[in-house]
Amino acid sequence: MSLRLRRLAILGLGLIGGSLAAALKARGAVDEVVGWGRRESSLQEGLALGVIDRFSLDLAEAVRDADMVVVATPTLIAEDVIAQLPGLLAPDAILTDVASVKGNIVAAVARAFGGLPACFVPAHPIAGSERSGVAAARADLFQAHRVILTPLPETAAGATQQVTSMWVETGAEVVSMPVADHDAVLANTSHLPHVLAFTLVDALASSPRGEDIFRFAAGGFRDFTRIASSDPTMWRDIALANREALLAAMDDFSGHLRDLRSAIDASDGAAIMAAFERARAARERFLQQAPAARARHQE
Amino acid sequence: MSLRLRRLAILGLGLIGGSLAAALKARGAVDEVVGWGRRESSLQEGLALGVIDRFSLDLAEAVRDADMVVVATPTLIAEDVIAQLPGLLAPDAILTDVASVKGNIVAAVARAFGGLPACFVPAHPIAGSERSGVAAARADLFQAHRVILTPLPETAAGATQQVTSMWVETGAEVVSMPVADHDAVLANTSHLPHVLAFTLVDALASSPRGEDIFRFAAGGFRDFTRIASSDPTMWRDIALANREALLAAMDDFSGHLRDLRSAIDASDGAAIMAAFERARAARERFLQQAPAARARHQE
Repeated sequence: MSLRLRRLAILGLGLIGGSLAAALKARGAVDEVVGWGRRESSLQEGLALGVIDRFSLDLAEAVRDADMVVVATPTLIAEDVIAQLPGLLAPDAILTDVASVKGNIVAAVARAFGGLPACFVPAHPIAGSERSGVAAARADLFQAHRVILTPLPETAAGATQQVTSMWVETGAEVVSMPVADHDAVLANTSHLPHVLAFTLVDALASSPRGEDIFRFAAGGFRDFTRIASSDPTMWRDIALANREALLAAMDDFSGHLRDLRSAIDASDGAAIMAAFERARAARERFLQQAPAARARHQE
Repeated sequence: MSLRLRRLAILGLGLIGGSLAAALKARGAVDEVVGWGRRESSLQEGLALGVIDRFSLDLAEAVRDADMVVVATPTLIAEDVIAQLPGLLAPDAILTDVASVKGNIVAAVARAFGGLPACFVPAHPIAGSERSGVAAARADLFQAHRVILTPLPETAAGATQQVTSMWVETGAEVVSMPVADHDAVLANTSHLPHVLAFTLVDALASSPRGEDIFRFAAGGFRDFTRIASSDPTMWRDIALANREALLAAMDDFSGHLRDLRSAIDASDGAAIMAAFERARAARERFLQQAPAARARHQE
Protein backbone atom coordinates (compact mmCIF):
# COMPACT_ATOMS: atom_id res chain seq x y z
CA MET A 1 0.00 0.00 0.00
CA SER A 2 1.54 3.29 -1.02
CA LEU A 3 1.24 6.28 1.27
CA ARG A 4 -0.05 9.73 0.42
CA LEU A 5 -0.03 12.39 3.14
CA ARG A 6 -1.77 15.69 2.55
CA ARG A 7 -0.05 17.65 5.27
CA LEU A 8 2.74 16.45 7.55
CA ALA A 9 3.55 18.48 10.66
CA ILE A 10 7.04 17.99 12.11
CA LEU A 11 7.21 19.31 15.67
CA GLY A 12 10.91 19.83 16.41
CA LEU A 13 12.99 20.08 13.25
CA GLY A 14 16.28 18.32 13.92
CA LEU A 15 18.15 15.41 12.37
CA ILE A 16 15.36 12.85 12.75
CA GLY A 17 12.34 15.03 11.92
CA GLY A 18 14.22 16.67 9.06
CA SER A 19 15.36 13.33 7.63
CA LEU A 20 11.81 11.94 7.81
CA ALA A 21 10.45 14.97 5.95
CA ALA A 22 13.25 14.78 3.38
CA ALA A 23 12.69 11.06 2.81
CA LEU A 24 8.92 11.44 2.32
CA LYS A 25 9.40 14.40 -0.01
CA ALA A 26 11.96 12.48 -2.04
CA ARG A 27 9.39 9.70 -2.47
CA GLY A 28 6.59 12.11 -3.35
CA ALA A 29 4.63 10.71 -0.42
CA VAL A 30 3.57 14.06 1.03
CA ASP A 31 1.98 17.20 -0.42
CA GLU A 32 3.09 19.66 2.23
CA VAL A 33 5.44 19.61 5.20
CA VAL A 34 4.94 22.15 7.99
CA GLY A 35 7.64 22.68 10.58
CA TRP A 36 7.27 23.87 14.15
CA GLY A 37 9.98 24.49 16.71
CA ARG A 38 11.22 26.81 19.39
CA ARG A 39 14.13 28.18 17.38
CA GLU A 40 13.21 30.07 14.24
CA SER A 41 16.77 29.65 12.91
CA SER A 42 16.36 25.86 12.55
CA LEU A 43 13.04 26.34 10.79
CA GLN A 44 14.51 28.95 8.43
CA GLU A 45 17.34 26.54 7.71
CA GLY A 46 14.89 23.70 7.02
CA LEU A 47 12.95 25.95 4.65
CA ALA A 48 16.13 26.97 2.81
CA LEU A 49 17.15 23.31 2.49
CA GLY A 50 13.72 22.42 1.10
CA VAL A 51 13.11 19.97 3.95
CA ILE A 52 9.89 21.80 4.90
CA ASP A 53 7.50 23.89 2.79
CA ARG A 54 6.58 26.38 5.48
CA PHE A 55 6.79 26.79 9.23
CA SER A 56 5.06 28.39 12.17
CA LEU A 57 6.22 29.22 15.67
CA ASP A 58 2.60 28.74 16.75
CA LEU A 59 1.80 25.12 17.57
CA ALA A 60 -1.93 25.41 16.76
CA GLU A 61 -1.14 26.90 13.39
CA ALA A 62 1.52 24.25 12.65
CA VAL A 63 -0.71 21.23 13.27
CA ARG A 64 -3.90 22.71 11.74
CA ASP A 65 -5.42 20.30 9.22
CA ALA A 66 -2.33 18.07 9.28
CA ASP A 67 -3.22 14.41 8.70
CA MET A 68 0.11 13.28 10.25
CA VAL A 69 1.66 14.97 13.28
CA VAL A 70 5.14 13.79 14.30
CA VAL A 71 6.58 14.88 17.65
CA ALA A 72 10.32 14.95 16.92
CA THR A 73 11.68 17.16 19.70
CA PRO A 74 14.18 15.89 22.28
CA THR A 75 12.73 13.30 24.68
CA LEU A 76 11.78 15.44 27.68
CA ILE A 77 10.60 18.44 25.64
CA ALA A 78 8.25 16.06 23.82
CA GLU A 79 6.25 15.72 27.05
CA ASP A 80 5.64 19.49 27.12
CA VAL A 81 4.71 19.63 23.45
CA ILE A 82 2.26 16.75 23.86
CA ALA A 83 0.62 18.53 26.81
CA GLN A 84 -0.33 21.40 24.46
CA LEU A 85 -1.78 19.26 21.66
CA PRO A 86 -5.31 18.35 22.86
CA GLY A 87 -7.89 20.41 20.97
CA LEU A 88 -5.39 21.35 18.24
CA LEU A 89 -5.39 18.19 16.13
CA ALA A 90 -7.64 17.70 13.10
CA PRO A 91 -10.30 14.99 13.56
CA ASP A 92 -8.57 12.61 11.12
CA ALA A 93 -5.03 13.37 12.36
CA ILE A 94 -2.64 10.62 13.33
CA LEU A 95 -0.23 11.43 16.15
CA THR A 96 3.16 9.75 16.40
CA ASP A 97 6.65 10.46 17.74
CA VAL A 98 10.29 9.42 17.33
CA ALA A 99 11.53 9.39 20.95
CA SER A 100 14.11 6.87 22.22
CA VAL A 101 11.99 5.95 25.22
CA LYS A 102 8.33 5.08 24.86
CA GLY A 103 6.92 4.67 28.39
CA ASN A 104 7.20 8.34 29.35
CA ILE A 105 5.75 9.49 26.03
CA VAL A 106 2.77 7.15 26.36
CA ALA A 107 2.22 8.42 29.91
CA ALA A 108 2.46 12.04 28.71
CA VAL A 109 -0.15 11.40 26.01
CA ALA A 110 -2.47 9.70 28.48
CA ARG A 111 -2.11 12.64 30.90
CA ALA A 112 -2.66 15.25 28.19
CA PHE A 113 -5.62 13.58 26.48
CA GLY A 114 -7.17 12.06 29.62
CA GLY A 115 -6.64 8.58 28.21
CA LEU A 116 -4.96 7.15 25.14
CA PRO A 117 -6.47 8.39 21.86
CA ALA A 118 -6.96 5.86 19.05
CA CYS A 119 -4.94 8.11 16.72
CA PHE A 120 -1.71 7.79 18.72
CA VAL A 121 1.04 5.43 17.49
CA PRO A 122 4.32 5.56 19.47
CA ALA A 123 7.36 4.99 17.28
CA HIS A 124 11.15 4.91 17.57
CA PRO A 125 13.41 4.94 14.50
CA ILE A 126 16.73 3.29 15.49
CA ALA A 127 18.88 5.65 13.51
CA GLY A 128 21.10 8.58 14.20
CA SER A 129 24.36 10.15 13.32
CA GLU A 130 27.26 11.82 15.05
CA ARG A 131 25.91 15.06 13.60
CA SER A 132 22.67 16.66 14.73
CA GLY A 133 20.34 19.42 13.60
CA VAL A 134 18.31 19.83 10.42
CA ALA A 135 21.46 20.66 8.41
CA ALA A 136 22.52 17.02 8.91
CA ALA A 137 19.16 15.69 7.63
CA ARG A 138 19.41 13.04 4.92
CA ALA A 139 16.62 11.43 2.89
CA ASP A 140 18.38 8.05 3.24
CA LEU A 141 19.00 8.16 7.00
CA PHE A 142 16.47 5.42 7.73
CA GLN A 143 17.28 3.12 4.84
CA ALA A 144 17.88 -0.44 6.06
CA HIS A 145 17.39 0.71 9.66
CA ARG A 146 14.72 -0.53 12.00
CA VAL A 147 11.78 1.47 13.28
CA ILE A 148 10.05 0.05 16.34
CA LEU A 149 6.34 0.80 16.77
CA THR A 150 4.72 0.19 20.15
CA PRO A 151 0.98 0.42 19.38
CA LEU A 152 -1.31 0.26 22.39
CA PRO A 153 -4.56 -1.66 22.89
CA GLU A 154 -6.33 1.68 22.37
CA THR A 155 -4.54 2.40 19.07
CA ALA A 156 -6.67 2.14 15.92
CA ALA A 157 -5.36 -0.49 13.50
CA GLY A 158 -5.68 2.03 10.65
CA ALA A 159 -3.44 4.51 12.47
CA THR A 160 -0.75 1.87 13.02
CA GLN A 161 -1.03 0.96 9.35
CA GLN A 162 -0.54 4.58 8.26
CA VAL A 163 2.53 5.08 10.46
CA THR A 164 3.94 1.77 9.23
CA SER A 165 3.43 2.87 5.62
CA MET A 166 5.12 6.18 6.33
CA TRP A 167 8.27 4.51 7.67
CA VAL A 168 8.29 1.87 4.93
CA GLU A 169 8.43 4.77 2.44
CA THR A 170 11.71 5.91 4.05
CA GLY A 171 13.27 2.50 3.41
CA ALA A 172 13.11 1.39 7.04
CA GLU A 173 12.14 -2.03 8.32
CA VAL A 174 9.19 -1.64 10.68
CA VAL A 175 8.73 -3.96 13.66
CA SER A 176 6.34 -3.89 16.56
CA MET A 177 6.62 -4.71 20.26
CA PRO A 178 4.99 -3.76 23.58
CA VAL A 179 6.08 -0.49 25.22
CA ALA A 180 7.74 -2.21 28.20
CA ASP A 181 9.69 -4.57 25.94
CA HIS A 182 10.92 -1.67 23.82
CA ASP A 183 12.12 0.27 26.84
CA ALA A 184 13.85 -2.78 28.35
CA VAL A 185 15.55 -3.73 25.08
CA LEU A 186 16.76 -0.18 24.48
CA ALA A 187 17.86 0.17 28.11
CA ASN A 188 20.12 -2.85 27.59
CA THR A 189 21.41 -2.32 24.04
CA SER A 190 21.74 1.43 24.00
CA HIS A 191 21.15 3.27 27.26
CA LEU A 192 23.26 0.97 29.46
CA PRO A 193 26.26 0.97 27.06
CA HIS A 194 26.15 4.77 26.95
CA VAL A 195 26.03 4.94 30.75
CA LEU A 196 28.99 2.53 31.00
CA ALA A 197 31.05 4.46 28.46
CA PHE A 198 30.32 7.81 30.14
CA THR A 199 31.14 6.28 33.54
CA LEU A 200 34.40 4.70 32.37
CA VAL A 201 35.72 7.90 30.82
CA ASP A 202 34.60 9.94 33.83
CA ALA A 203 36.25 7.49 36.24
CA LEU A 204 39.54 7.52 34.32
CA ALA A 205 39.54 11.29 33.93
CA SER A 206 39.12 11.77 37.67
CA SER A 207 41.93 9.31 38.51
CA PRO A 208 45.27 10.75 39.68
CA ARG A 209 46.83 8.88 36.73
CA GLY A 210 44.29 10.42 34.32
CA GLU A 211 46.84 12.13 32.13
CA ASP A 212 48.91 8.96 31.56
CA ILE A 213 45.82 6.86 31.20
CA PHE A 214 44.51 8.78 28.22
CA ARG A 215 48.00 9.12 26.77
CA PHE A 216 48.39 5.38 26.49
CA ALA A 217 44.86 4.49 25.53
CA ALA A 218 44.71 2.94 22.09
CA GLY A 219 42.28 1.74 19.42
CA GLY A 220 40.08 -0.58 21.47
CA PHE A 221 39.60 2.14 24.05
CA ARG A 222 38.70 4.61 21.34
CA ASP A 223 35.98 2.35 19.93
CA PHE A 224 34.76 1.42 23.38
CA THR A 225 34.34 5.02 24.49
CA ARG A 226 33.13 6.53 21.20
CA ILE A 227 29.58 6.77 22.56
CA ALA A 228 30.89 8.82 25.52
CA SER A 229 31.22 11.66 23.01
CA SER A 230 27.43 11.68 22.57
CA ASP A 231 25.32 14.70 23.54
CA PRO A 232 25.16 14.83 27.38
CA THR A 233 21.79 16.61 27.42
CA MET A 234 20.12 14.03 25.19
CA TRP A 235 21.50 11.18 27.29
CA ARG A 236 20.61 12.79 30.59
CA ASP A 237 17.04 13.08 29.28
CA ILE A 238 17.01 9.46 28.12
CA ALA A 239 18.35 8.30 31.51
CA LEU A 240 15.58 10.22 33.26
CA ALA A 241 12.85 9.14 30.82
CA ASN A 242 13.79 5.44 30.97
CA ARG A 243 14.81 5.49 34.63
CA GLU A 244 13.29 2.23 35.79
CA ALA A 245 14.33 0.05 32.87
CA LEU A 246 17.81 1.57 32.93
CA LEU A 247 18.22 0.95 36.67
CA ALA A 248 17.17 -2.67 36.14
CA ALA A 249 19.71 -3.06 33.33
CA MET A 250 22.43 -1.42 35.45
CA ASP A 251 21.68 -3.74 38.37
CA ASP A 252 21.78 -6.80 36.16
CA PHE A 253 25.11 -5.68 34.72
CA SER A 254 26.53 -4.86 38.16
CA GLY A 255 25.59 -8.33 39.40
CA HIS A 256 27.53 -9.93 36.57
CA LEU A 257 30.47 -7.58 37.19
CA ARG A 258 30.48 -8.54 40.88
CA ASP A 259 30.58 -12.22 39.95
CA LEU A 260 33.50 -11.63 37.62
CA ARG A 261 35.26 -9.57 40.28
CA SER A 262 34.94 -12.48 42.71
CA ALA A 263 36.36 -14.86 40.12
CA ILE A 264 39.35 -12.59 39.43
CA ASP A 265 39.88 -12.01 43.16
CA ALA A 266 39.93 -15.79 43.69
CA SER A 267 42.19 -16.29 40.63
CA ASP A 268 39.45 -18.63 39.35
CA GLY A 269 40.66 -18.98 35.76
CA ALA A 270 37.87 -21.39 34.80
CA ALA A 271 35.09 -19.00 35.88
CA ILE A 272 36.77 -16.03 34.13
CA MET A 273 37.25 -18.10 30.99
CA ALA A 274 33.62 -19.26 31.02
CA ALA A 275 32.30 -15.67 31.18
CA PHE A 276 34.64 -14.46 28.41
CA GLU A 277 33.82 -17.47 26.22
CA ARG A 278 30.06 -16.95 26.63
CA ALA A 279 30.47 -13.28 25.71
CA ARG A 280 32.54 -13.94 22.63
CA ALA A 281 30.19 -16.67 21.43
CA ALA A 282 27.13 -14.42 21.95
CA ARG A 283 28.74 -11.56 20.07
CA GLU A 284 29.68 -13.83 17.15
CA ARG A 285 26.04 -14.98 16.97
CA PHE A 286 24.90 -11.36 17.08
CA LEU A 287 27.26 -10.31 14.30
CA GLN A 288 25.87 -13.01 12.05
CA GLN A 289 22.33 -11.80 12.71
CA ALA A 290 23.01 -8.11 12.19
CA PRO A 291 24.65 -7.13 8.89
CA ALA A 292 26.95 -4.11 9.15
CA ALA A 293 24.79 -1.82 6.98
CA ARG A 294 21.86 -2.30 9.26
CA ALA A 295 23.94 -1.62 12.34
CA ARG A 296 25.68 1.53 11.16
CA HIS A 297 23.93 4.09 13.30
CA GLN A 298 22.24 4.11 16.62
CA GLU A 299 20.56 6.38 19.04
CA MET B 1 72.39 5.04 17.05
CA SER B 2 71.66 2.29 14.59
CA LEU B 3 71.15 -1.24 15.84
CA ARG B 4 72.87 -4.37 14.64
CA LEU B 5 71.91 -7.70 16.20
CA ARG B 6 73.93 -10.81 15.46
CA ARG B 7 71.36 -13.34 16.51
CA LEU B 8 67.81 -12.66 17.68
CA ALA B 9 65.91 -15.44 19.43
CA ILE B 10 62.11 -15.15 19.37
CA LEU B 11 60.55 -17.41 22.00
CA GLY B 12 56.93 -17.88 20.93
CA LEU B 13 56.37 -17.09 17.28
CA GLY B 14 53.00 -15.35 16.98
CA LEU B 15 51.77 -12.00 15.70
CA ILE B 16 53.98 -9.86 17.94
CA GLY B 17 57.19 -11.91 17.86
CA GLY B 18 56.78 -12.52 14.13
CA SER B 19 56.16 -8.85 13.38
CA LEU B 20 59.19 -7.80 15.43
CA ALA B 21 61.40 -10.26 13.52
CA ALA B 22 59.95 -9.16 10.19
CA ALA B 23 60.45 -5.46 11.01
CA LEU B 24 64.09 -5.94 12.04
CA LYS B 25 64.82 -8.07 8.98
CA ALA B 26 63.20 -5.47 6.72
CA ARG B 27 65.54 -2.86 8.23
CA GLY B 28 68.60 -5.12 7.93
CA ALA B 29 69.06 -4.75 11.68
CA VAL B 30 69.61 -8.44 12.39
CA ASP B 31 71.85 -11.12 10.90
CA GLU B 32 69.90 -14.17 12.01
CA VAL B 33 66.53 -14.82 13.61
CA VAL B 34 66.00 -18.09 15.46
CA GLY B 35 62.49 -19.16 16.43
CA TRP B 36 61.42 -21.36 19.32
CA GLY B 37 57.94 -22.49 20.20
CA ARG B 38 55.83 -25.39 21.35
CA ARG B 39 54.11 -25.93 18.00
CA GLU B 40 56.37 -26.88 15.14
CA SER B 41 53.68 -25.87 12.64
CA SER B 42 53.95 -22.17 13.57
CA LEU B 43 57.74 -22.34 13.31
CA GLN B 44 57.57 -24.05 9.92
CA GLU B 45 55.15 -21.35 8.82
CA GLY B 46 57.48 -18.60 10.04
CA LEU B 47 60.34 -20.20 8.17
CA ALA B 48 58.30 -20.44 4.96
CA LEU B 49 57.28 -16.77 5.32
CA GLY B 50 60.93 -15.75 5.82
CA VAL B 51 60.12 -14.28 9.23
CA ILE B 52 62.76 -16.52 10.87
CA ASP B 53 65.91 -18.06 9.43
CA ARG B 54 65.79 -21.28 11.42
CA PHE B 55 64.08 -22.74 14.43
CA SER B 56 64.54 -25.21 17.22
CA LEU B 57 62.08 -26.96 19.51
CA ASP B 58 64.86 -27.04 22.09
CA LEU B 59 65.02 -23.88 24.18
CA ALA B 60 68.75 -24.17 24.97
CA GLU B 61 69.53 -24.57 21.28
CA ALA B 62 67.27 -21.66 20.30
CA VAL B 63 68.84 -19.08 22.65
CA ARG B 64 72.46 -20.28 22.22
CA ASP B 65 74.75 -17.35 21.39
CA ALA B 66 71.79 -15.03 20.80
CA ASP B 67 72.60 -11.43 21.73
CA MET B 68 68.88 -10.56 22.02
CA VAL B 69 66.31 -12.96 23.49
CA VAL B 70 62.66 -11.91 23.27
CA VAL B 71 60.03 -13.82 25.24
CA ALA B 72 56.94 -13.42 23.05
CA THR B 73 54.69 -16.25 24.23
CA PRO B 74 51.26 -15.60 25.78
CA THR B 75 51.43 -13.93 29.22
CA LEU B 76 51.16 -16.90 31.57
CA ILE B 77 53.27 -19.25 29.42
CA ALA B 78 56.01 -16.61 29.53
CA GLU B 79 56.45 -17.34 33.25
CA ASP B 80 57.22 -21.02 32.46
CA VAL B 81 59.60 -20.15 29.64
CA ILE B 82 61.46 -17.68 31.86
CA ALA B 83 61.84 -20.35 34.56
CA GLN B 84 63.86 -22.45 32.10
CA LEU B 85 66.20 -19.71 30.89
CA PRO B 86 68.85 -19.43 33.66
CA GLY B 87 72.10 -21.01 32.51
CA LEU B 88 71.05 -20.97 28.85
CA LEU B 89 71.73 -17.33 27.94
CA ALA B 90 74.99 -16.13 26.39
CA PRO B 91 77.06 -13.85 28.68
CA ASP B 92 76.33 -10.78 26.57
CA ALA B 93 72.67 -11.62 25.93
CA ILE B 94 69.92 -9.11 26.58
CA LEU B 95 66.61 -10.54 27.78
CA THR B 96 63.33 -8.78 27.08
CA ASP B 97 59.65 -9.63 26.58
CA VAL B 98 56.44 -8.26 25.02
CA ALA B 99 53.80 -9.18 27.62
CA SER B 100 50.78 -6.99 28.35
CA VAL B 101 51.39 -7.12 32.11
CA LYS B 102 54.80 -6.41 33.56
CA GLY B 103 54.58 -7.12 37.31
CA ASN B 104 54.15 -10.89 36.97
CA ILE B 105 56.94 -11.13 34.37
CA VAL B 106 59.35 -9.19 36.57
CA ALA B 107 58.46 -11.48 39.49
CA ALA B 108 58.97 -14.57 37.31
CA VAL B 109 62.41 -13.36 36.24
CA ALA B 110 63.39 -12.60 39.85
CA ARG B 111 62.25 -16.09 40.93
CA ALA B 112 64.02 -17.83 38.06
CA PHE B 113 67.31 -15.94 38.30
CA GLY B 114 67.35 -15.50 42.09
CA GLY B 115 67.18 -11.72 41.66
CA LEU B 116 66.88 -9.37 38.73
CA PRO B 117 69.69 -9.69 36.17
CA ALA B 118 71.15 -6.51 34.70
CA CYS B 119 70.44 -7.84 31.19
CA PHE B 120 66.64 -7.90 31.67
CA VAL B 121 64.51 -5.11 30.15
CA PRO B 122 60.73 -5.58 30.46
CA ALA B 123 58.84 -4.20 27.46
CA HIS B 124 55.28 -3.95 26.15
CA PRO B 125 54.53 -2.95 22.56
CA ILE B 126 51.00 -1.43 22.51
CA ALA B 127 50.05 -2.96 19.21
CA GLY B 128 47.92 -5.81 18.04
CA SER B 129 45.44 -6.85 15.45
CA GLU B 130 42.20 -8.73 15.23
CA ARG B 131 44.23 -11.52 13.61
CA SER B 132 46.75 -13.58 15.50
CA GLY B 133 49.53 -16.06 14.70
CA VAL B 134 52.71 -15.66 12.69
CA ALA B 135 50.76 -15.67 9.41
CA ALA B 136 49.36 -12.26 10.43
CA ALA B 137 52.85 -10.85 11.13
CA ARG B 138 53.60 -7.51 9.44
CA ALA B 139 56.87 -5.58 9.34
CA ASP B 140 54.92 -2.32 9.88
CA LEU B 141 52.80 -3.48 12.83
CA PHE B 142 54.59 -1.25 15.32
CA GLN B 143 54.93 1.83 13.15
CA ALA B 144 53.68 4.92 14.98
CA HIS B 145 52.69 2.76 17.96
CA ARG B 146 54.05 3.09 21.45
CA VAL B 147 56.31 0.60 23.20
CA ILE B 148 56.50 0.96 26.96
CA LEU B 149 59.74 -0.12 28.67
CA THR B 150 59.74 -0.63 32.42
CA PRO B 151 63.46 -0.89 33.24
CA LEU B 152 64.28 -1.74 36.86
CA PRO B 153 66.90 -0.26 39.19
CA GLU B 154 68.93 -3.44 38.50
CA THR B 155 68.72 -3.05 34.70
CA ALA B 156 71.96 -2.03 32.96
CA ALA B 157 71.62 1.27 31.08
CA GLY B 158 73.25 -0.33 28.04
CA ALA B 159 70.62 -3.09 27.95
CA THR B 160 67.80 -0.54 28.08
CA GLN B 161 69.52 1.38 25.29
CA GLN B 162 69.76 -1.74 23.10
CA VAL B 163 66.09 -2.65 23.57
CA THR B 164 65.11 0.97 22.89
CA SER B 165 67.14 0.93 19.66
CA MET B 166 65.53 -2.34 18.61
CA TRP B 167 62.01 -0.91 18.94
CA VAL B 168 62.96 2.39 17.34
CA GLU B 169 64.07 0.34 14.29
CA THR B 170 60.49 -0.98 13.99
CA GLY B 171 59.14 2.58 13.76
CA ALA B 172 57.72 2.58 17.27
CA GLU B 173 57.84 5.42 19.79
CA VAL B 174 59.55 4.15 22.95
CA VAL B 175 58.57 5.47 26.37
CA SER B 176 59.52 4.41 29.85
CA MET B 177 57.67 4.15 33.17
CA PRO B 178 57.79 2.18 36.42
CA VAL B 179 56.32 -1.35 36.42
CA ALA B 180 53.48 -0.46 38.80
CA ASP B 181 52.49 2.58 36.72
CA HIS B 182 52.44 0.50 33.55
CA ASP B 183 50.23 -2.15 35.09
CA ALA B 184 47.83 0.45 36.54
CA VAL B 185 47.60 2.41 33.29
CA LEU B 186 46.98 -0.73 31.24
CA ALA B 187 44.48 -2.04 33.79
CA ASN B 188 42.46 1.14 33.27
CA THR B 189 42.80 1.74 29.53
CA SER B 190 42.77 -1.81 28.26
CA HIS B 191 42.05 -4.55 30.80
CA LEU B 192 39.06 -2.85 32.45
CA PRO B 193 37.36 -1.95 29.13
CA HIS B 194 37.75 -5.55 27.99
CA VAL B 195 36.28 -6.82 31.25
CA LEU B 196 33.33 -4.40 30.91
CA ALA B 197 32.67 -5.38 27.30
CA PHE B 198 32.83 -9.11 28.07
CA THR B 199 30.56 -8.58 31.09
CA LEU B 200 28.00 -6.53 29.18
CA VAL B 201 27.67 -9.04 26.37
CA ASP B 202 27.55 -11.94 28.83
CA ALA B 203 24.89 -10.18 30.92
CA LEU B 204 22.73 -9.43 27.88
CA ALA B 205 23.14 -12.93 26.45
CA SER B 206 21.98 -14.49 29.71
CA SER B 207 18.92 -12.22 29.95
CA PRO B 208 15.50 -13.71 29.14
CA ARG B 209 15.23 -10.97 26.50
CA GLY B 210 18.65 -11.91 25.05
CA GLU B 211 17.39 -12.73 21.59
CA ASP B 212 15.53 -9.41 21.14
CA ILE B 213 18.34 -7.48 22.73
CA PHE B 214 20.89 -8.56 20.18
CA ARG B 215 18.39 -8.24 17.36
CA PHE B 216 17.89 -4.55 18.04
CA ALA B 217 21.44 -3.66 18.95
CA ALA B 218 22.90 -1.17 16.50
CA GLY B 219 26.14 0.60 15.59
CA GLY B 220 27.12 2.06 18.94
CA PHE B 221 26.64 -1.32 20.58
CA ARG B 222 28.75 -2.97 17.90
CA ASP B 223 31.67 -0.58 18.49
CA PHE B 224 31.27 -0.75 22.24
CA THR B 225 31.40 -4.54 22.35
CA ARG B 226 33.98 -5.11 19.58
CA ILE B 227 36.64 -5.97 22.17
CA ALA B 228 34.35 -8.69 23.58
CA SER B 229 35.29 -10.67 20.46
CA SER B 230 38.90 -10.82 21.68
CA ASP B 231 40.59 -14.09 22.53
CA PRO B 232 39.13 -15.33 25.86
CA THR B 233 42.29 -17.29 26.79
CA MET B 234 44.55 -14.30 26.32
CA TRP B 235 42.24 -12.08 28.37
CA ARG B 236 41.77 -14.63 31.13
CA ASP B 237 45.57 -14.75 31.42
CA ILE B 238 45.84 -10.96 31.48
CA ALA B 239 43.13 -10.75 34.16
CA LEU B 240 45.02 -13.28 36.27
CA ALA B 241 48.45 -11.72 35.63
CA ASN B 242 47.29 -8.17 36.44
CA ARG B 243 44.83 -9.21 39.13
CA GLU B 244 45.52 -6.53 41.73
CA ALA B 245 45.67 -3.53 39.42
CA LEU B 246 42.58 -4.78 37.56
CA LEU B 247 40.60 -5.25 40.78
CA ALA B 248 41.54 -1.70 41.82
CA ALA B 249 40.40 -0.35 38.44
CA MET B 250 37.14 -2.36 38.64
CA ASP B 251 36.45 -1.03 42.14
CA ASP B 252 37.09 2.54 41.09
CA PHE B 253 34.75 2.12 38.12
CA SER B 254 32.07 0.43 40.24
CA GLY B 255 32.17 3.31 42.71
CA HIS B 256 31.51 5.79 39.91
CA LEU B 257 28.74 3.57 38.53
CA ARG B 258 27.12 3.40 41.98
CA ASP B 259 27.17 7.21 42.20
CA LEU B 260 25.55 7.51 38.80
CA ARG B 261 22.97 4.89 39.74
CA SER B 262 22.04 6.95 42.81
CA ALA B 263 21.70 10.07 40.67
CA ILE B 264 19.42 8.29 38.17
CA ASP B 265 17.43 6.69 40.98
CA ALA B 266 16.91 10.16 42.52
CA SER B 267 16.12 11.67 39.07
CA ASP B 268 18.97 14.09 39.80
CA GLY B 269 19.39 15.54 36.31
CA ALA B 270 22.16 17.93 37.35
CA ALA B 271 24.36 15.16 38.76
CA ILE B 272 23.78 12.94 35.68
CA MET B 273 24.54 15.84 33.38
CA ALA B 274 27.73 16.72 35.28
CA ALA B 275 29.08 13.16 34.93
CA PHE B 276 28.20 12.95 31.21
CA GLU B 277 29.69 16.40 30.55
CA ARG B 278 32.95 15.54 32.34
CA ALA B 279 33.20 12.33 30.31
CA ARG B 280 32.57 14.00 26.99
CA ALA B 281 35.04 16.78 27.74
CA ALA B 282 37.72 14.28 28.83
CA ARG B 283 37.26 12.20 25.70
CA GLU B 284 37.49 15.28 23.47
CA ARG B 285 40.78 16.18 25.17
CA PHE B 286 42.01 12.61 24.71
CA LEU B 287 41.11 12.58 21.01
CA GLN B 288 43.16 15.71 20.46
CA GLN B 289 46.16 14.14 22.18
CA ALA B 290 46.01 10.81 20.39
CA PRO B 291 45.98 10.96 16.58
CA ALA B 292 43.99 8.17 14.93
CA ALA B 293 47.01 6.49 13.30
CA ARG B 294 48.66 6.07 16.64
CA ALA B 295 45.52 4.65 18.19
CA ARG B 296 44.65 2.12 15.52
CA HIS B 297 45.45 -1.09 17.37
CA GLN B 298 45.56 -2.17 20.94
CA GLU B 299 46.25 -5.13 23.09
